Order: sequence, then structure tokens, then C-alpha cells
Amino acid sequence: MRAFVVNKPFDYGLADLRMPECAHDGVIVKVLAAALCHSDLDIIEGRRRHQVKFPNTVGHEFTGIIAEKGKGVTHVNIGDHVVCECIIWCGTCKQCRMGFTSLCDNFSELGTMEPGAFAQYTALPGRLVHPAEGLTIEEAALMEPAGNGLHAAETAGILPGDNVVIIGPGPIGILAMQFAASFSPAKLIMIGTRDSRLAFAKQLGATHIININKTNAAEAVMEITGGRGAERIINCATTDVSLETALRITGKNAVIVMEGLSGSGKPVPIMMDDFIVKNFSIVPASGVSTRQYMTAMEMVKNKKVNLTSLVSHKFPLEQMDEVLRTIREDRDKAMKILILPNGSV
Amino acid sequence: MRAFVVNKPFDYGLADLRMPECAHDGVIVKVLAAALCHSDLDIIEGRRRHQVKFPNTVGHEFTGIIAEKGKGVTHVNIGDHVVCECIIWCGTCKQCRMGFTSLCDNFSELGTMEPGAFAQYTALPGRLVHPAEGLTIEEAALMEPAGNGLHAAETAGILPGDNVVIIGPGPIGILAMQFAASFSPAKLIMIGTRDSRLAFAKQLGATHIININKTNAAEAVMEITGGRGAERIINCATTDVSLETALRITGKNAVIVMEGLSGSGKPVPIMMDDFIVKNFSIVPASGVSTRQYMTAMEMVKNKKVNLTSLVSHKFPLEQMDEVLRTIREDRDKAMKILILPNGSV
Amino acid sequence: MRAFVVNKPFDYGLADLRMPECAHDGVIVKVLAAALCHSDLDIIEGRRRHQVKFPNTVGHEFTGIIAEKGKGVTHVNIGDHVVCECIIWCGTCKQCRMGFTSLCDNFSELGTMEPGAFAQYTALPGRLVHPAEGLTIEEAALMEPAGNGLHAAETAGILPGDNVVIIGPGPIGILAMQFAASFSPAKLIMIGTRDSRLAFAKQLGATHIININKTNAAEAVMEITGGRGAERIINCATTDVSLETALRITGKNAVIVMEGLSGSGKPVPIMMDDFIVKNFSIVPASGVSTRQYMTAMEMVKNKKVNLTSLVSHKFPLEQMDEVLRTIREDRDKAMKILILPNGSV
Amino acid sequence: MRAFVVNKPFDYGLADLRMPECAHDGVIVKVLAAALCHSDLDIIEGRRRHQVKFPNTVGHEFTGIIAEKGKGVTHVNIGDHVVCECIIWCGTCKQCRMGFTSLCDNFSELGTMEPGAFAQYTALPGRLVHPAEGLTIEEAALMEPAGNGLHAAETAGILPGDNVVIIGPGPIGILAMQFAASFSPAKLIMIGTRDSRLAFAKQLGATHIININKTNAAEAVMEITGGRGAERIINCATTDVSLETALRITGKNAVIVMEGLSGSGKPVPIMMDDFIVKNFSIVPASGVSTRQYMTAMEMVKNKKVNLTSLVSHKFPLEQMDEVLRTIREDRDKAMKILILPNGSV
Repeated sequence: MRAFVVNKPFDYGLADLRMPECAHDGVIVKVLAAALCHSDLDIIEGRRRHQVKFPNTVGHEFTGIIAEKGKGVTHVNIGDHVVCECIIWCGTCKQCRMGFTSLCDNFSELGTMEPGAFAQYTALPGRLVHPAEGLTIEEAALMEPAGNGLHAAETAGILPGDNVVIIGPGPIGILAMQFAASFSPAKLIMIGTRDSRLAFAKQLGATHIININKTNAAEAVMEITGGRGAERIINCATTDVSLETALRITGKNAVIVMEGLSGSGKPVPIMMDDFIVKNFSIVPASGVSTRQYMTAMEMVKNKKVNLTSLVSHKFPLEQMDEVLRTIREDRDKAMKILILPNGSV
Repeated sequence: MRAFVVNKPFDYGLADLRMPECAHDGVIVKVLAAALCHSDLDIIEGRRRHQVKFPNTVGHEFTGIIAEKGKGVTHVNIGDHVVCECIIWCGTCKQCRMGFTSLCDNFSELGTMEPGAFAQYTALPGRLVHPAEGLTIEEAALMEPAGNGLHAAETAGILPGDNVVIIGPGPIGILAMQFAASFSPAKLIMIGTRDSRLAFAKQLGATHIININKTNAAEAVMEITGGRGAERIINCATTDVSLETALRITGKNAVIVMEGLSGSGKPVPIMMDDFIVKNFSIVPASGVSTRQYMTAMEMVKNKKVNLTSLVSHKFPLEQMDEVLRTIREDRDKAMKILILPNGSV
Repeated sequence: MRAFVVNKPFDYGLADLRMPECAHDGVIVKVLAAALCHSDLDIIEGRRRHQVKFPNTVGHEFTGIIAEKGKGVTHVNIGDHVVCECIIWCGTCKQCRMGFTSLCDNFSELGTMEPGAFAQYTALPGRLVHPAEGLTIEEAALMEPAGNGLHAAETAGILPGDNVVIIGPGPIGILAMQFAASFSPAKLIMIGTRDSRLAFAKQLGATHIININKTNAAEAVMEITGGRGAERIINCATTDVSLETALRITGKNAVIVMEGLSGSGKPVPIMMDDFIVKNFSIVPASGVSTRQYMTAMEMVKNKKVNLTSLVSHKFPLEQMDEVLRTIREDRDKAMKILILPNGSV
Repeated sequence: MRAFVVNKPFDYGLADLRMPECAHDGVIVKVLAAALCHSDLDIIEGRRRHQVKFPNTVGHEFTGIIAEKGKGVTHVNIGDHVVCECIIWCGTCKQCRMGFTSLCDNFSELGTMEPGAFAQYTALPGRLVHPAEGLTIEEAALMEPAGNGLHAAETAGILPGDNVVIIGPGPIGILAMQFAASFSPAKLIMIGTRDSRLAFAKQLGATHIININKTNAAEAVMEITGGRGAERIINCATTDVSLETALRITGKNAVIVMEGLSGSGKPVPIMMDDFIVKNFSIVPASGVSTRQYMTAMEMVKNKKVNLTSLVSHKFPLEQMDEVLRTIREDRDKAMKILILPNGSV
């Protein structure tokens, strides 16, 4: 089968691999659509090496059809369209038993430590797949980033009437914003650097947008909120300065959710007493539990969140070069690129 | 009436003041016992000026008897023994209506902005007093710090089986530790610098104690927890280094609760990505809501928490000099000093 | 001032009353609009005598303008448009301190035990009014029933993807349905007896409607839910048979919320073991806490719920006869009737 | 291997069965101790036929040693002492993914539908076993009833200071009472019919005991609670009258948790309006989720609950006749009987 393999940073390409073998409790999924995530590009270009195995087939946001299943798998059948989780959780450690499968003590992951989804077929434990009934292929392909958006919005603990700010109108930011909207915020403000992305955010529900390159974000947030500041801030940006911005716009009893990685390695100075004096929390939201997949799927089916409009491009697997060129050169327009390893969908 | 008045930092003493007047919705409490808090000393010695009015009668942890009440007060009667809140909350702002009275938008406070409890009588809104039935005078006098301990333990979100670390065996640390014990932690570890305080913590429920001056705290925590680290850390210490210690002992999905103020004004460098990569939250716990007073009182009545043993000294109001000498010179032994403005209790 | 007074059941009419006096912590509200509730009719026609004082001015769903305020009231000013709570809660009992103000140990109520809102002016404790900024007069007048709808939907504990059934398309049922929709149910089914009301429910968000007079409701629910049944049932109907219907459509781990009173006095036979064998809960939702007013107001401002379309009629206070004729003779069309004691709004 | 097999009601005895086979994702547990549950006796004596397969080896509360394991099992090793769940949950249905494994859509159970634990060896899916480190054999054997006690206490939603009543001082009632104590109730009242059992309840933490055969339970509860009634009632009794008792002692906003089955088939008449007028909920607690096993184990390790004192008898498997004679003839003293299929422990 055809697959996109990264041998080591900047050394990658299509290859013919053996079909994966199906485990007793596993399934083989024929990949219909896999979405490119910035962390895939980070692996390809060597920015991420933590928990990455080389050589490997990358890709962890995907949907497909059950092509084969082991004897231990009973909840799906061959031919079923499925949503696929990418974190390989064990189900028996303390974290899994408490419901936090994305924190599994025996954590592994497709596309980083195990072969991923930029391939015609991929093998995974059966417990990682969910019947996709009621979802389109585009929606099913994007359930992993959707789950991250839900995780961020849930973690923020938004109360009706809170002022909510999202920093970073990338795919996760746009998704977190849409999930946040379902909690009835007073204001839903997107902060970013690119006008086209901000316009897109507005179209999908932002009540206000702020281009941080043109406007003093802290002043703008204070003005929009009548001096109250933001009670909930979801930081999906990937620069250290984003945290500094977040710290300047906190309102009473604020929660700052961290979603994006800066990769900078440079410490942000925080006054320890500010946590108490200014009364804010900093809380991470990373990974998607199996419960969160269920919740996110239902909210997508219920039209609380629009995934389809995030799909900006589709390419067959054979055009991975074009995929990479697009994300590198046309980043503004490349919201989510779908790769179709088995032909058009 | 006699009161201890701070005119300005380091200029203080006993004075004869007029009896306070009782408002329509207010009460006058005859103070039976008021506890000295380190923040009182900070006001007296000029370390705290934020939200402090001079001259003022300090003291905000206290209990007494209803001496007078306004016509609008119906839930207590003259002669009733009462627990007294010290944050003056309005009851009608958004924070109060949502249940977060300690974050009241019209926040004021006895002993800082309004006359406090190191006096024979003090005036406060009636809604701030609770019948103290079932509590001793010592217990009732310490309900404010107890509420802070509860707040810290609740905020930590302890799950049964979590490893819990408390940093700082002062009164709040000891109280937070006792409340934490009610959530069934696997290990309950107290970290401090003074052996006598650590021994006291052990007596009141710590499963392990670590003297950070003698032992590498991070190594010790890792050893005690079998390499897992602490899932919940309550930082009641008042030095920047305490946060650095906390950051070195986090286990999976850890929560660091900030309780103490360092007053240092020096930033602590935090790697932004660590929130996600190491997966920890930093969350403040400050102030006590009226709901938390109710909860803390019930837990004290239920013997989940021992307040009495924290009382190390009692002095009449006339001996405030001795009170200050004790806290300054004999800090180790001075866990909680009760001041008795109306004679022995 | 003019007021609609019920001397005793079936003995009622307009009267000239003295202006109410304003208490120290109270306000006088000039009533702009008050909505008729079925419980008002129950008082007028003698079906409800529990906790009813005669003679009395009825009316408890209303909005108006602050005409006068006591010295103890600081959060609103004369001339402010306000949302008015109708349960008189004390703020200092255990229930109030825990956040459950509608269960106040010193409970009283406007329109039943105290003079109500079918009058030009009404007096109430200041803590019962909320600034209505951002709400229309129609919306503000209906915040009490909206709060009840929110209470029912919150109590149901709806998880995304649950099948939700509402029984009874009266105003509370329609409102509970709209709040329920915000929790992303898979199906949102309204069961009733009148086609016009069911059609209205569909217009406001029901995914399915069932006329119990024409269709076997249990069979229909099972068909709509693919045999799963309803996980959440909100019973807003006022007949014993409604509970029997609810009991026949429960799915796994179901919650039945009781909202309506049947007044029948006839016991419903329930098999004790069914709670365990069929695994359902029966849970009441009655009254609106001050926190729930806040939440409901924000959700209305956020367009999660449409109150305006519920207003079917408006009459001046002088036409109370017409109000009563309409509710008695034209019940189908009389969704919510607004009474305007101070002229058109 | 030796096993206790029920061929049909009242037709039972020891038999030599083939060793069970170990599945790919399964384990074979060498049973060290299995506890007799009243539902076992109900199967043996034909009172329970719902979801019961004949012939079958009964027994579902047990602990043992891993004797064999399939290739798919990695979290335990041969020789490990384990706690065993008895509900066979799939892990992939909606209920399991939401964390409610005891409501699994593909529910099966050891000792009813599958061979149980009154045997030298029993086979079960590996995900049903937990390392028992830190627990004695007696404690580990009783984790299933302990989990039920936790479930009941959690479901009651006890707030500190609530008055809590347990009806039925059988093993589950005694366990629910102990878990309830950890939530700081004001009063913890056990109602029963047998003085020896009530005395035992008192010894393990009840603040008050009421023998319903000698005392008017409703009057007694009202007196003990100062007329307030019980906010939380856990009904572990197996008679219809227990629900009627519960309904007579409800305080404000009460929750009645149903734990026991009466098997009576006779309806209890409930006034529909009472749910609202008296404001109480009726909520079931049945089965133990995998999360609840974790929580219960940690609370037992933390000494919140004493399981050991519930063990009243131990017999080898060969003396099943004596086990049955004891439970039938000496029911008062037979709190929990442990059966030891592989010799003394």
C-alpha cells in the first residue's frame, strides 16, 4: 500500500509499504480522508522530536472504513464508516479508569510513535474507533481537532454571560470558539494577526475580532467588555507573547486555558503573587479523551459546530508535495487540508 | 471602648474609641476572641498597604456575642454566639449571585478597609454572622482561616488516591492539610523548614514530612510517591522558591493551588509549554465565600478538622505588646494567638 | 393606585389601593408588564389555597422601573429597568447560603403571600431586582417562567446526544424545551394534546412532536429513538397521566423531571423495584434561584431562548376581565398574556 | 476443578468442572475468597430469575490470584493478587465511553449469566481485574459490595451538615453508612429491625439508631433532627414499607436513594404532586462502575471504611451446606460469609 513516510526530518516521501496486520483486538481502517495538522509539519521539518519515532508514517486526524477486524472487536463491522481516535490508551490504568484516557499511563499515538494515517490503510486498536453514523466524511475526518476544541472550551469552565477571548484563529482556535459559543458567553472575542482568518472567525460566530498587529489587544478587550476584562481566555496561539497578552486581559476570577505550544524554550516571567492578587488560573487542555470524542460528535451532529467550512483543500495522497507546498506557501488560506489516500470522497 | 489601632506602619497602640453605631441591617458584636493573622502583622509593619486604610483597628478572624442588632436583622438575636465573616460582600452583584461572595464586586473587608476585631466591639452587616451553635469559642474564632484551608483543599480537586503535598506548615497549611485528608489522599506530605511545625503536621495527619533545609524535596516526594509525583499541591508558603519547588514535584495532570503571598515582586520564570508538556494547572484560592463558611463549620462540628490544637496562646487585649513580641520572637511556637478583648473565655 | 385584588376565590376586581411603602432595604417598582400564570388563575378560581393569603393582589411574573428605593439599596437606581424575582428569600438561612434561594427557610412570595404585580406599583426587597440592561420589556417580564424552564433543563442533566422528551407544550414546557436544546440533545420531542401548541413547539426547536390524543406516545417515542427510549424527560403537564406516560418511555439511566402540579390528590402507583430494575430517577424542579435568574438572563441575551414569541396578548390592567375571558375561552392561543398596569409599552 | 453449581432453583451442589479456558484478552483467577451475597441466595432459592442462566456457578464478590492470562493482558501478571469486578462491560458502547460501565449496553455478569466465583478458578476479561496492592484478602473480597455502598453514598449527594438516614443495616447499608460518614453529615441515623445489627451500625459510626419495630421511625427522625427531617435517605431495605418510611422522613430538597429490591411486585402509591410540594427526588444506585472500584479501593486503603469487621464467617468451599445453613438459620450473625475455594487464607 502507498504511504507517506518520514525517514527523518526533511527526508520524506511516498513509499510502498506492506499492509499492516490486524491484531486480535484491532482493526484495519481504509483511510478515506486524513487532515494535515501543524504538528505533522513539525515532525516533517524536525521541530518536534519528543515522543517521535523515525521512520514513521505521519497523520493522526482521519476517518475511514473498517477493512478488517480482529476476533475481539464486536462494536463495528467491516464496511462501517468510523471516527478514529489517535491516542492509544490502554483502558486499565488509573487514568483510563477515571475517564482521562488521553492521559493514559501507557500512552502511545498514531502518527508519532505508531504508523499513522497518511496511508491507504492503518492499523489501530478496535476501542479507538467509533461508528460515524450521522457524520459526513469531512466532519468525521476532523473529529480529533474538534475534540481538542471541545476540551479547551470545557476546561475554560465558561458560565453564561462570561466574556470569552480566543487567541489564535487557527483550526483549533476556530473550533474552540465555536464550542465556547454553546456556553452563552456575553462577548466572544477572537484575537489574531491575520485579517482573513479573523474575518473567518467572525463569520463562524465571533462577536468581536482584534488584529493584534494593528490594535492594542489589552485596550480593545477592556473597551469591548466595559472594563471588566475576560473571564475566560483560550490561548491557541503558538508564541510566548500570547501568554503575555492573556495575562494582560484577565478579568475577575479568570481562567487561561493553554492549548498551543510555542516551542520557544524561553521562560515567561510570571509574578507568583499575581495568581492570588489578580486571581487567575492557568490550565492546560491537551489531548482528547474517548468521552470527549462522544460529546464532540454529538455536538457536531446537533449543528452546534460547523466543521465542513474549515476544509480549505483536498488532495490525493500522491500529491503530498502539493499539500506541503500549500501549507508552507499559502498558510493563510490553508485552514484544513484533507489528504485522500484512496481517491476522491 | 478599647481597641488596638494602627495609625500608620509601626505607629500603633491601644485607644479608647467610641462605640460603633449599629446599622439598619447591621449588628454590633462583642468580641470574645480574635486571632492574630500574619496579614495583621503585615499591616502593622507596613508590608501590606494594598487595600489598607489608616488609621484603622486591625483584626479579621474573630467570634463574639450579638450585643446589638438593626431592625433588618432577623436570623440572630442579642446574646447569640456567632461566627463572623470578614469580607463585606453586597449580595447583589454578579459574583455574589453566582455564589462567589469572596469575589464581590463591591468588596470591602473588616480590619483593612473597615474597623476590625482587635476591639471590644465591632460593627458589621448582619448577613456576615452565622449562629455558632455547636462550636467552641476557639473553633468559632478560627473559622476564617479554616474556611481558607477548605477553599484550598476544594480548589485542589483531590480525587481519592491522589498524592497530595502541602508546602508551608503555618496555620493555613495545617488547616488545608486537614481538609485535604477528608478527600482520601494516598499520601499527604507536608513540606516545610521548621522541625517543630513539621512534627505538629505529622501529629495532625501528615503521612510524611520533609524539611526542605535538610532534604531535597523533589527527590523525597518522588521516592515517597514511587516516582509518580504529586497530583495535588497546595502552596501555602510565602516565598518564591515555594512555587519552584511545586513545579519540580508535579505528577500527571497536577494542580498547584496558590494560597500564600510572597510579596517579593520578583517574577518566577515559567516555560509556557510546560503547562501542556508537563500538564499542570496553577490555580489560586483566596478568600472564603459564605457557602464555604457553612461547609467548613459543618466539617469542624463533624470532627474532620481539629482547630483547637492550633491555639497556642491567649492574651487579653491589654497585652497586645506581648502578642506582638510573641509572634516576632517566638514564631515557631506561635501557631495561633487569640486576643480576648473582653476578658478570659 | 389601581390593583387587581382577589378577596376570595371568584370574588375579585380592580380596586384603588394605597401606594405601598418602601422599606429600608426595599424598592418600589412601577410595573410595566406582568404576565398571567396559570397559578394566578388557580388562586382566582380557588384551586390553590396552599400558601395563599386573601385578600391579595396577585401576579408574580413582571418587570418595571425603580420608582423609589430604600437607603440600603445600592445596586440599582431610580428609573432603572429591572427584572424582578418573586420568591422573597432571606439570604442568611442555610439554603440561601448554599445557593438554593428558592428553597429559603423563610420563604415568602409576591402574589400569593405578599401583594403582587397586577398593580401599578409593587414593593419588594431590593435584593430581588436585577438590572434588565440588554433585555426588552417582554423578555424581562418573562424571566420568571424562563428561569423555571432553565431549572427544569438543568435538573434533567442532559448530556449531548441524549434523547429528550418534554411533556406539555404550555409556556414552561416550551421554555424548558428551548433551554434543553442548548445541551445538544439527539432528539427533542414534544408531547401534547393540542396541535396548535405542538406546531408552535416545532417552530421553536422540537425535532419531533406527538399528539397523545392521536398517537400512542410510548410507541412513537420508541420509534423515534430507535428503541432506545428517552434518557431525559421533563414533565410540565398537569395531569397524573403525564407521569404514567413518562414512566413508559424511559431509556437507560433516565431522569424524569417533575415541573407541573396535577392537583389531583390521586396517588400514582409506582413499583418500588422499577427505580432499580428500569433505572430511572424522578426529580423535581420548582422555583428559580437568584443564580438561575442570572443564568437565564444571559442565555436570553445570547439568543439561546426566544421569549418574545411566547407573548400572545397584551391588555391594560383595566381590561382584566378580558384577560380572564381570553385565558378561559381561548386557552389555545393564550400562550402568555401581558398585563400593562401603566399603559402600553 | 471444584465448583458450586446451581442446576435450577433448589437443585444445587458441588461438582467437578473443567478448568475454564483463558481468552486472548482474559484472565483465569484462582479464587482465594468469595463472599456470599443475598442475591446469590435468591438465585439458589428461585426468587431471582431475571437475567439468570441455569445451570451456573454462582458467586460474584471475590478476590484471587492471576493464574493465567491471555496475550492481550498487560496490566497484571501471573501471581498478582487482584480485585475483580463482576459486571462484564464492553468498553466501547456509549455508556462505557461516558464512564458508566455498570450500565454497559452489552452488559453481562459473572455468577448470573456467566460462571461465577464459588469455584476454584474463574475466567473473566482482563479489564475487570485491578491490582489489589495495599488491600487484605478480606478487603479485596468485599470490594463489590463496598463499591455499591460508595455508589449509594455518592448518589445521595450529601452536603456537609446534611441529616442522613440509612434504612436497612445489612452489609450494603452498613457500607453505604460508612461512605456517607466521609461526607460530614450532621446526623447519621440507621433504621432497622434487629437490635444486634443496629448495635453494629452504631459501632461503625451511626450517630443514632432506630428500631422500627419498637419506635415510630418518622417521629424519631424528626426529633433527632430538630424537626428538619432527613435531607438524604439511602434505602437499602428490601420491603415496600421501607419506601413509605423514607417518604415520611424527608426534609427540605431531600434525595431518596434506592438500593435494595423488594421483589414484592406490589405498587407503592405516590402522590405525583408530592415530588414538587414536598420537594424530594427518588434516585436509584445499582451496580458499580470501574471508576467507582478505583475510588472505593482508595477509600478503603485510606481507612475511611472498615470492611474487615463485616466478615462474620469463613468456610471452605466443601462446606457450602454449612454456608447455606448459616445464612438461613443464623441470619442475624451472618453479616458477610467468605467462601474459600482453595483453602484457608
